[in-house]
Amino acid sequence: MEDDGLLQYLRGMVDHVIRASDLYQRTRSVLERDKPDIRIVIAFGKASVPMAKAAVEVLGDRVEGGVVVIPRWREPVKLGNLEVIQANHPVPDEGSLEAGEAVIEWSRAASGKGLLVLVSGGGSALVEKPQEGLTLEDLTRTTKLLLNSGANIHEINTVRKHLSMVKGGWLAKHAEPGPVYAYYASDVPGDRFESIASGPTAPDPTTYSDALLVLKRYELLGKVPMSVIKVLEEGASGRRPETPKPDDPVFRNVSNKLVAANIDVLIGLQNVLEEDGFNTLILTSRLDGDSREVGKALASITLEILERGVPIRPPAALLLGGETSVKVKNPEGRGGRNQELALSWLLHVDKWLTDYGRVGLLAMDTDGIDGNSPAAGAIVVSGMSKLARDKGFDPYLYLEENNSYELLRAIGSTIETGGLDSNLNSVVIILIKKI
Amino acid sequence: MEDDGLLQYLRGMVDHVIRASDLYQRTRSVLERDKPDIRIVIAFGKASVPMAKAAVEVLGDRVEGGVVVIPRWREPVKLGNLEVIQANHPVPDEGSLEAGEAVIEWSRAASGKGLLVLVSGGGSALVEKPQEGLTLEDLTRTTKLLLNSGANIHEINTVRKHLSMVKGGWLAKHAEPGPVYAYYASDVPGDRFESIASGPTAPDPTTYSDALLVLKRYELLGKVPMSVIKVLEEGASGRRPETPKPDDPVFRNVSNKLVAANIDVLIGLQNVLEEDGFNTLILTSRLDGDSREVGKALASITLEILERGVPIRPPAALLLGGETSVKVKNPEGRGGRNQELALSWLLHVDKWLTDYGRVGLLAMDTDGIDGNSPAAGAIVVSGMSKLARDKGFDPYLYLEENNSYELLRAIGSTIETGGLDSNLNSVVIILIKKI
Repeated sequence: MEDDGLLQYLRGMVDHVIRASDLYQRTRSVLERDKPDIRIVIAFGKASVPMAKAAVEVLGDRVEGGVVVIPRWREPVKLGNLEVIQANHPVPDEGSLEAGEAVIEWSRAASGKGLLVLVSGGGSALVEKPQEGLTLEDLTRTTKLLLNSGANIHEINTVRKHLSMVKGGWLAKHAEPGPVYAYYASDVPGDRFESIASGPTAPDPTTYSDALLVLKRYELLGKVPMSVIKVLEEGASGRRPETPKPDDPVFRNVSNKLVAANIDVLIGLQNVLEEDGFNTLILTSRLDGDSREVGKALASITLEILERGVPIRPPAALLLGGETSVKVKNPEGRGGRNQELALSWLLHVDKWLTDYGRVGLLAMDTDGIDGNSPAAGAIVVSGMSKLARDKGFDPYLYLEENNSYELLRAIGSTIETGGLDSNLNSVVIILIKKI
Repeated sequence: MEDDGLLQYLRGMVDHVIRASDLYQRTRSVLERDKPDIRIVIAFGKASVPMAKAAVEVLGDRVEGGVVVIPRWREPVKLGNLEVIQANHPVPDEGSLEAGEAVIEWSRAASGKGLLVLVSGGGSALVEKPQEGLTLEDLTRTTKLLLNSGANIHEINTVRKHLSMVKGGWLAKHAEPGPVYAYYASDVPGDRFESIASGPTAPDPTTYSDALLVLKRYELLGKVPMSVIKVLEEGASGRRPETPKPDDPVFRNVSNKLVAANIDVLIGLQNVLEEDGFNTLILTSRLDGDSREVGKALASITLEILERGVPIRPPAALLLGGETSVKVKNPEGRGGRNQELALSWLLHVDKWLTDYGRVGLLAMDTDGIDGNSPAAGAIVVSGMSKLARDKGFDPYLYLEENNSYELLRAIGSTIETGGLDSNLNSVVIILIKKI
């Protein structure tokens, strides 16, 4: 009969992915180690609940108060004496403005007492306080124009930080003279504090003039709202306060640390796989590109390992993390970046391989939700496209119509974990059996 | 001033790519080593000229005659006493039929005398002899339908071999009892003899019935020309001869050897780079996927190496080979798979990096021709997208409109070698400087 060894093994890896990306445990560990002397807690981002829970449990009575900002879809929970506010993600809403006010208020209240800031991805939308004279729409429209302009990440952030009173170090500045202990869970490529949730406690070396130059460079001066130009020009002529610079005294009392990033999940999984006898290779923790095309490229690496033992010899495990993208052609299709990558990989592997279960792939999001589907991702092994065809599916059509979930569920390939309280992007594990 | 070290170094690598993929030298070496006892020479494929030249020089007077089939765009050259025929590629034409007749005639003439067969990619179109009752159009139409059906490579070849009298071992069979010495330069992923130019001297384990099953499986029985069904059904009922099977006595006197494949080029380059102090990693010799998206994914691996030394530490060199694909939106654009990959990689690297020349990429085709452009490929280093913008180019637009050549030429990035007599697919070298 068919050999389900690799399939079973990969199913067992799902728990390891969840464990390796658990932000409650990771936050707990670093707080127990650091024991920061704080009285106020501010947590925001898609993983604010597990991070705040760890803080409340470790720091207990020391916490006088604070605020936790959670995404609207997340069921509110009781977190000690912390205020809980719901706001929208990825597009900010009124809740985000309410959260912005609360965050600034609690920062000021923490002045001289000790502030703990727990930041995770999504925080940039969940908490906002536009500069006076600007609306939320001004901010979102400007961001959108910048994203489509060809400007690099640093240039985009230069503008965004100068339109906000929480981003670009402002949160830390409100808590002056500190101390501020900030812990970040990264969902951004490169894992720099200044980029995670737009760096609310990270110094900002850029200026209003730099922001204007960026708009000029990408010919956006005539496209962004007039109010944005007004704010930046007033700032450039000294009529608005600059974001706090690296030499600002407040940063002597600010500590920024990384609690976890995608690379930590990959290293955790690598350890498990090596113990189980696999030769392992982490390719990247910041994977990018269209899911289907990346699936193809990864199939080509998989086949080279199988046939030539290059770049590593079977039994081999390739690890990648990050976020691929999906081109949506059919808005009614169900699926996500991980499921499209898995299905595409499978189809390209099955073009060449006839053995069932010789190679396998797991792709899932650490937040438990892949795209618009109820699944976290999928597990596939070579030969499975035949199962789909036998059930009457045309796999290429399902891939083309963004319907990867329907097909993968029908062959028992989906990973269904429900929403997980983490936000460390996706992980891909590819296994190649020994011949 | 700007540091052009990496750029200069990569320019120097072009010669190494050419040398590592030189099929004249490689063929010469194996023939000098093997000294096959032959009288007749048949060479076909995009690299038939350098391979035949090596044979004529090494074997000299021993060669009584034979035929060399070259692509129409290749200027004919004198090759000893060998007949030279021009034919079309990738779509076969009348020349291909003429070549098919000549190849079969020379194979028969070689019976008992010793036949040297030199095969390179493209040979499948350059030489054809359809089974009686079939036209060239029947063959090309059937192949096209199979390629779009989801059938895997083995399934496609199963059908194609049963429609031809030169593919699937037939060429060797015509020269029975041999001996036949065949040398292959591979341009196919996996480098199997049965796949290169459809394996004219490789045994074929598949049958007419298998071919009919493939057409049935992909619901093509009603779509392929009627004449194709007729040939396969006659074959299945024993009224046409089967392709020669692995136990056919002729194969006791047939030797198939690989002269070169893409992996050999990569290993050659790896040696050069290691001598120059780079830590190297070959990722795959059978790269697949859309050029732009693969460029993005490779940028993410490049940045991880730069920032974390994962999977290898700088100074690092990543090597890949194979063939990515290009989605043509604008047929008037000029460029190719290598130039689109290079430009996309550059844009994604420059999104994150500000240092000129910290990382660099070379992508070129070993045949010297990238897509519909006069270039073989391109060399880019981080920071170069600014050069393009300074010259008034919108790089995303040029990429979108398949105009990579225009932009890359304007910033001095193209590699212009002219057509090279090789056909070992493309190579990509990515270099990351030590910090």
